[in-house]
Amino acid sequence: MRQSYRLTAKQNKQHNTVVRVRDVNIGGDELVVMAGPCVVETREQVLEIAQILKNMGANILRGGAFKPRTSPYAFQGLAEEGLKYMAEARELTGMPIVTEVMDTRDLELICEYTDLIQIGSRNMQNFALLREAGLTNKPVLLKRGLSATIEEWMLAAEYILAGGNDQVILCERGIRTFETHTRNTLDISAIPAAKELSHLPVIVDPSHATGKWEMVNPLAKAAIAAGADGLLIEVHVNPEEALCDGAQSLTPKNFANLLEELRPVAQAVGRLS
Amino acid sequence: MRQSYRLTAKQNKQHNTVVRVRDVNIGGDELVVMAGPCVVETREQVLEIAQILKNMGANILRGGAFKPRTSPYAFQGLAEEGLKYMAEARELTGMPIVTEVMDTRDLELICEYTDLIQIGSRNMQNFALLREAGLTNKPVLLKRGLSATIEEWMLAAEYILAGGNDQVILCERGIRTFETHTRNTLDISAIPAAKELSHLPVIVDPSHATGKWEMVNPLAKAAIAAGADGLLIEVHVNPEEALCDGAQSLTPKNFANLLEELRPVAQAVGRLS
Amino acid sequence: MRQSYRLTAKQNKQHNTVVRVRDVNIGGDELVVMAGPCVVETREQVLEIAQILKNMGANILRGGAFKPRTSPYAFQGLAEEGLKYMAEARELTGMPIVTEVMDTRDLELICEYTDLIQIGSRNMQNFALLREAGLTNKPVLLKRGLSATIEEWMLAAEYILAGGNDQVILCERGIRTFETHTRNTLDISAIPAAKELSHLPVIVDPSHATGKWEMVNPLAKAAIAAGADGLLIEVHVNPEEALCDGAQSLTPKNFANLLEELRPVAQAVGRLS
Amino acid sequence: MRQSYRLTAKQNKQHNTVVRVRDVNIGGDELVVMAGPCVVETREQVLEIAQILKNMGANILRGGAFKPRTSPYAFQGLAEEGLKYMAEARELTGMPIVTEVMDTRDLELICEYTDLIQIGSRNMQNFALLREAGLTNKPVLLKRGLSATIEEWMLAAEYILAGGNDQVILCERGIRTFETHTRNTLDISAIPAAKELSHLPVIVDPSHATGKWEMVNPLAKAAIAAGADGLLIEVHVNPEEALCDGAQSLTPKNFANLLEELRPVAQAVGRLS
Repeated sequence: MRQSYRLTAKQNKQHNTVVRVRDVNIGGDELVVMAGPCVVETREQVLEIAQILKNMGANILRGGAFKPRTSPYAFQGLAEEGLKYMAEARELTGMPIVTEVMDTRDLELICEYTDLIQIGSRNMQNFALLREAGLTNKPVLLKRGLSATIEEWMLAAEYILAGGNDQVILCERGIRTFETHTRNTLDISAIPAAKELSHLPVIVDPSHATGKWEMVNPLAKAAIAAGADGLLIEVHVNPEEALCDGAQSLTPKNFANLLEELRPVAQAVGRLS
Repeated sequence: MRQSYRLTAKQNKQHNTVVRVRDVNIGGDELVVMAGPCVVETREQVLEIAQILKNMGANILRGGAFKPRTSPYAFQGLAEEGLKYMAEARELTGMPIVTEVMDTRDLELICEYTDLIQIGSRNMQNFALLREAGLTNKPVLLKRGLSATIEEWMLAAEYILAGGNDQVILCERGIRTFETHTRNTLDISAIPAAKELSHLPVIVDPSHATGKWEMVNPLAKAAIAAGADGLLIEVHVNPEEALCDGAQSLTPKNFANLLEELRPVAQAVGRLS
Repeated sequence: MRQSYRLTAKQNKQHNTVVRVRDVNIGGDELVVMAGPCVVETREQVLEIAQILKNMGANILRGGAFKPRTSPYAFQGLAEEGLKYMAEARELTGMPIVTEVMDTRDLELICEYTDLIQIGSRNMQNFALLREAGLTNKPVLLKRGLSATIEEWMLAAEYILAGGNDQVILCERGIRTFETHTRNTLDISAIPAAKELSHLPVIVDPSHATGKWEMVNPLAKAAIAAGADGLLIEVHVNPEEALCDGAQSLTPKNFANLLEELRPVAQAVGRLS
Repeated sequence: MRQSYRLTAKQNKQHNTVVRVRDVNIGGDELVVMAGPCVVETREQVLEIAQILKNMGANILRGGAFKPRTSPYAFQGLAEEGLKYMAEARELTGMPIVTEVMDTRDLELICEYTDLIQIGSRNMQNFALLREAGLTNKPVLLKRGLSATIEEWMLAAEYILAGGNDQVILCERGIRTFETHTRNTLDISAIPAAKELSHLPVIVDPSHATGKWEMVNPLAKAAIAAGADGLLIEVHVNPEEALCDGAQSLTPKNFANLLEELRPVAQAVGRLS
């Protein structure tokens, strides 16, 4: 079966891939922290949080303009308007931006604005979207599906690499299990597994994995200790008023605290942060 | 939460929805059997199996032209050519046809050919696709996602109904569990659950649920006994040479046998078949 | 791996095993219905329900005297007193009785009273208990563990058969999955799987599988249609006041209705009921 | 529901419990490493590995004398003979010992030898055993069940505490999910969850969680980073010839390497090791 993901397989490549998102390298010695709100709500919100995160040391700004929502009646994002605010935040702070694409028809538009394309869990096996992302020249953040095996995740990456785009970052974000105490179950083993199977960088999203902001800190440390190349963290100026996923968002203060506590863990496993 | 799927909810509609696919009604007294190969391989194959299935009493012909495949190197389907063969099979037999759509960009093309649009498990939360399907005037077969809760399945249907299209058929096809003896675990409880929560017809795909042709027969009977409105069955003239899912495909002979054994079960629960 | 359960394996035995519990045969042409309250509460309760169930046509009376309860503060059963009431109910009605054993130290006592020993889900891999049960001359009802694979279930049976006791009935009662709409997920495929792998009779407990009395009826029919040899059903004179599992218990009236609706389904698959 | 585990609940106790196993404290500042073979095979084996582990800095010696084995034909342990060798290893090295109990009838015997009683995953809801363990004066290592929710795990601990024994150590050892790349899925979130809900120490068994020795190192680091109070690690002088679980056992050399790499991680989160 492993031969099925021949371009993604570690054994078929001499060096691990370092993905370059503007001036940020993912997969090298340095840990990379992507942070920001779940969804872009207003221009002010995104500019404010971007400036705060930049000052604290985040590397890449995240924010959704097209949002996959379980209910058709939930806030679906600002679409192009949201992309414009994200781009403006990049101008302001110099941080590269990452945002999600959900539809092949939006890919061209999103590529005009974003530095890194996110393919979310619910689209990990949207093969048309994977194939199109493989034809762009943008790096891709590929989240593991809610119940995708590690094998299927590798094969989803293979769809992108097969198109000629090897700038793929894998992102573990929790899987669906019987446990209801957390939103999902962070599969910490997926980090060493993915790094053994493939040459691609692996990051972790502890916010979605747990669904509870209090657990983001210990899980982020665990991810780094287990060998992750970076983190994707939800931060909101006022989580209680967030339009999406407030319960799992850190306040800026808690985010600053997290970064400080991460540093010694990163050093303990030979990484810079 | 139930108010989230207000158009789909049983309590908000006086009668159960009967979906009409050409002259076939799904959700009425009569059981409906959709059958055919996983994927359209050649013109001869599809015309041959269509004629056989028609003679045996199948109601709708299934066959994939655009196939979601875990690996980018697996056979991906014949695309429009496959749709043409399916349409030709309909001319030949009079059976309506159902085929899968995976990409919003293909929807218009597929609607030109098909009578019933299938949205597969991997796209159950492809919200862009759901929304577009809601804007067509074709009935939609919505498969439950691999690890979708029944609640999420209802909300996926709601995306389609919210667009103005209430011709939706729900299809249970097995969920992902720890058990490896079967490909998936058929959630037989999802049938009474979906019929209690919504007014939409519910069918079952025992072929994908089990992954083993020997189990299709007992699971099909169980589905009917539990109240399903129909079945989706993979049948192939020569399963051993099938390009996709041969292990779970019935031979025509076994399919005929299944239909015969289903009849008394259907009658036992007050259905015609 | 299959050779691991050589005594349980179908291929190593010429005929399917018919388990005899007093004058009731399980695994033959006739369906067997075991019914009764989750737990013996009072003498009056058990004598009343036993008489009702007997009149309705149930074959075996169930009732717990030693109860596995998730919380140490929940009602744990009447112990020997409960066994006495069960035995009295047998005298009154002629129905054999089945009750659960949880501790090797209780086995001798329980064997003095019961006709059929139940080993519950939480003890499916209590290997000491399995081994002791294999040394008794009582038939054993072995429930599948909450997250036991079918393979592990076969091997648990093998522990009993290896002790010299081949009077084992397998009982599918739902497995643990991500779905929260039902208490567990009834693995309907486990019926044909267990019957293909082993020569032992297989029954189904739809009450525990679903946790909702409204679903017991469709799931019971599905189980019979899929080939089960019998059912284990919770019935309580007054479910709302039950000390345990009231939400999944049928009233006598609903139980009578179930038996009536089961009859044609049983006949449809060539069984008597 | 939380009130159900009132003795276990953190909110009902002023300080976290530190469990004392002879002169080793679990739940204090220092990390505790329990190590040894899955099963005691011979006197020589256990004395040799004990001396090696002691020299390397392990704190407690593990080794099974009564083993829960999925198959009745697998090696079941040396029983009392194995306990004697474990006790001899304690004399030799001064390390306290931990071994598993599976049957209430063996508890007295095991308590004569062991310093810490292990209740394994398959017995987490063996309520008779939990209750008896609560009546001993030995500390108890309570492993989480294969598919036990965190809530059920707390309630299992409550059974022990309700008997008067508050010397309980919780052990996360992986849960059962759909993923087959690892033997189980280590639920890293269970560490902060258990520490938030209860006052009991929490350790992690990365060997059983992953089933692969190569992953023990990153998972052990992750566990410590997430706040675990210790580890339970399988070490075997010659894993390839182990009678049980060789694939997940470290060689002494890899174990020494693990301890060395753990030290900076422990310090990074404010723990001694």
